[in-house]
Order: sequence, then C-alpha cells, then structure tokens
Amino acid sequence: MLSLIIYDIPSDKLRSKVADICKDYGLDRIQFSAFLGEINHNRREELLQKIKREIGRKQANVQLFPICDKDVRLRQIVVVNESSERTDKSDGK
Amino acid sequence: MLSLIIYDIPSDKLRSKVADICKDYGLDRIQFSAFLGEINHNRREELLQKIKREIGRKQANVQLFPICDKDVRLRQIVVVNESSERTDKSDGK
Repeated sequence: MLSLIIYDIPSDKLRSKVADICKDYGLDRIQFSAFLGEINHNRREELLQKIKREIGRKQANVQLFPICDKDVRLRQIVVVNESSERTDKSDGK
Repeated sequence: MLSLIIYDIPSDKLRSKVADICKDYGLDRIQFSAFLGEINHNRREELLQKIKREIGRKQANVQLFPICDKDVRLRQIVVVNESSERTDKSDGK
C-alpha cells in the first residue's frame, strides 16, 4: 500500500538518517521532510522500527499515513520553482 | 473529508502566511509544516486558491492529500519530546 511519511526532526544528522532509511525502503522524496511510496505491511512495520531505533531519545515527530488509491487520485500539488521564473535575466533583476 | 496539507516553503514570511490560512480553515497543525483537518470539497478548493494566490511566483511546494476514514485509522505516530527526557536532572546532564 502507498504510504506517506512526514517528519519534524530538529537534528540535521538524525533527519538525514531517517531520510536514508526511507530511501532504503524504496520511498520517493516528495518534499524535504516527506516521502511517499509503495510498501507492504511487513516492510512498513520494519521501516518504522528502524526509524524508532534511530530516533532513540532524540527529539522527533514522525507520522505515517497509508494512502489508498482513491485518496492518491485526489491528491493536489502546487509547485512553484522560483528559479524557473528567473531564467529571463533581461528584466534587470 | 479529512485532508492533510504538507508544504516546503523556503520563505519564512510565506510559510507563516500559508500556516495562517490553514488555521483559518480550521485545520490542526500536526507538524511544523503539516496541517490536518476536516474540510469539505468547496472549502478545500477555496483554501487551495488562497494558498496559490499567496504563493504567486514565490518558491513553494504544497501538497494536499485527502485521507479517508480507513487510512486515518491506520495512521502511525512516533513522537519523542527530548525535553521530557530531561526532567530528571539527577543524572548530571
């Protein structure tokens, strides 16, 4: 099942470790602190256990939402990449 | 329907504006850059339009996921609040 993992982690090192674990489990980074991907129940539990072990007593808020097919079809994305607005340098900015 | 909004926004000012809009629509902050709450289809569209107008040409990645009842029941949360681990000062740290 598709799963979304989002996290608030103050420590750069821990945040980067958690991102690596998500990547190892085949999830795709969709934002700086959000990963989405197909993962079955057993591997999802394993992934969460790994993340918990990595966190230990360090400050963290990690949330996993399973996302069913219907919900993912209703997903809405707004992306503005500022740099792409700056390709024309003739405006003097 | 329950909706989850997550965002990556580099500008502090814009990020704070988007958070205010989410709060105005009754969503609850579940992480620094994630809000969750009940919102009907029309208000969800209105909320997204407001966010888009606020973003304009500024850099942003905003994603909205509707979360059905079944998915929300399977949500998993790992929270460690480091400060709560430090209430016992007798360990000398």
